[in-house]
Amino acid sequence: MNDTKLIDIASALGISVTTVSKALKGYTDISKTTRAKVIEMADKMNYMPNSVAVNLRTNETKTIGVIIPATVHHFFSSVLNGILEEAEKRGYLVIILQSSEKYELEKKQVALLLQKRVDGILMSLSNETDDFFHINEAIRKNTPVVLFDKIAKRVDCSKVVINDMKAAYDAVTYLIEKGFKKIAHFRGSYVPQNSIDRFLGYKKALEDHNIKYDPSLVYVCDHNTDFEDGYENAEKLMTDHNDVDAVFAVTDLVAIGIIKYFNDKKIKTPEQVAVFGFSNWFMSTVISPKLTTIDQPGYDIGYRAASILIDEIAQIKEHIPVVHQIVELPTHIIERESTQRL
Amino acid sequence: MNDTKLIDIASALGISVTTVSKALKGYTDISKTTRAKVIEMADKMNYMPNSVAVNLRTNETKTIGVIIPATVHHFFSSVLNGILEEAEKRGYLVIILQSSEKYELEKKQVALLLQKRVDGILMSLSNETDDFFHINEAIRKNTPVVLFDKIAKRVDCSKVVINDMKAAYDAVTYLIEKGFKKIAHFRGSYVPQNSIDRFLGYKKALEDHNIKYDPSLVYVCDHNTDFEDGYENAEKLMTDHNDVDAVFAVTDLVAIGIIKYFNDKKIKTPEQVAVFGFSNWFMSTVISPKLTTIDQPGYDIGYRAASILIDEIAQIKEHIPVVHQIVELPTHIIERESTQRL
Repeated sequence: MNDTKLIDIASALGISVTTVSKALKGYTDISKTTRAKVIEMADKMNYMPNSVAVNLRTNETKTIGVIIPATVHHFFSSVLNGILEEAEKRGYLVIILQSSEKYELEKKQVALLLQKRVDGILMSLSNETDDFFHINEAIRKNTPVVLFDKIAKRVDCSKVVINDMKAAYDAVTYLIEKGFKKIAHFRGSYVPQNSIDRFLGYKKALEDHNIKYDPSLVYVCDHNTDFEDGYENAEKLMTDHNDVDAVFAVTDLVAIGIIKYFNDKKIKTPEQVAVFGFSNWFMSTVISPKLTTIDQPGYDIGYRAASILIDEIAQIKEHIPVVHQIVELPTHIIERESTQRL
Repeated sequence: MNDTKLIDIASALGISVTTVSKALKGYTDISKTTRAKVIEMADKMNYMPNSVAVNLRTNETKTIGVIIPATVHHFFSSVLNGILEEAEKRGYLVIILQSSEKYELEKKQVALLLQKRVDGILMSLSNETDDFFHINEAIRKNTPVVLFDKIAKRVDCSKVVINDMKAAYDAVTYLIEKGFKKIAHFRGSYVPQNSIDRFLGYKKALEDHNIKYDPSLVYVCDHNTDFEDGYENAEKLMTDHNDVDAVFAVTDLVAIGIIKYFNDKKIKTPEQVAVFGFSNWFMSTVISPKLTTIDQPGYDIGYRAASILIDEIAQIKEHIPVVHQIVELPTHIIERESTQRL
């Protein structure tokens, strides 16, 4: 069944053996159509390259690993779509793992991916992760790592991020300029850099506008910073501070939880309390009131991160020194109904 | 750097070499904790098993491939979460590919996964797929395939589905019993079985209740049956049939597009036109009016499909004859505001 040789496929298609071999190895200088033709013919002729044996020779698996901290939802599904599209375009397969915000699991998954000999790893860190030995080990073993979204400043590798502090600062400044005076913040948990930065942006905006920072107006969303977090904390907020006039939420999902609570309790948004989200998940245009938010380019983050990783894989292969880059993608405010003063 | 032997790790942890070796191979009879310990120690001691060489011996890659037709969003993200959790539990890695509803790409991706020597493949078919040679080839080559959601009745393999026809029949019957008389259907495109079955369920429910079936009340959502499809077809519908009193949509996303259009045009839901969705994506509880829909258990579908696939992989390995199963998961109506007659 596996007697078919490359030459058989080549002559069947009237192309060179090199082209056939390159196509089967997924080299990107071969057109998609040719590659599809070759693979189809190889399949028809029952040619079974032992890709495993091929790997031993080329020491490449044409596979990258992705570790995301949360379940595949909302923001991470956009990121994933960016990663999968770029990987497909560059001829890489993608192994996806979820650390479920657990440091031990994340560590284990990095080890598994290394054992699997992936060519590189894309990671967004779990909320628990505050030790980076496992990541540095991967890098030390010449497996490039690119961090995105939830990164660690201390790890020396390429990163694709947004400026969370600036984005949050802009959001809260916008609220202050709209005339909101008592602005609460529903923050993420204490470890992840983006949750820290968004909180710091909130605090700095208040201070720069001579509004006294009040810690009791900050609520921590420590489940998965999801819908329920927003809903439950909104309830607490209205008990503690029924004169609050705006909330800046760490994610759209949290913001939607807040709006849901307000709608259920007939608390008018934005007339009584304005709500500002973060990430511009498409549902923010569908709920009423439509949510004002920060546009966080999930697809672009995934796409750029994958692209940089695959470039670094090639550089390492060619023994070209890798220069790490910190890519900061721009964000901007999407103004909608949830913050409009009538 | 790779001089460490299994025995070194075993003695470092005071456990047997077999346990170490099993743990590193991800055998499921080793506890997660032990496996984590072993992998951590192996990593600390810089032990690098050549998993590739291991594969040549065991002829296993402990990897499964997943091909989904659409981008990772909504329903498929729930399915993916079910797959990833079961795979993690059973010690398998998951390679994810998107066929983007393209038959040629899906065919190529199956070939790539076979070339990659995955142990099994999970697939939901593209809307274009009406030839199943590529799937039958995989099965013929002893790589088990489990189809889920968008399946082909003609392929002889295990399948995890819901009864789309019955679910649609129940939805439309519910609308009729609520007193709605002119019920439109926003269907999916013509090829996929689930879109055909939902349409047939709609048609049969009308006929069984002596309501004449009117083809002009059926609108095809042929983009990705997404939000825009619902929005645009709602506009057409109100031009063609401004006396329509209910719409049964093929997905929640389409239904949400409809509601969005109605909200924008101040068309009252459900007072003027009721809307019924399909899949119970969590956003259907957040929009107003809250969406009545069919509960489609995405997570369970992914979880069960992965579980069956991994069982079949084991059976093939042990030369136990595989008996294919068609698992039909139950669905039910989730009644919310969008269909409530006042």
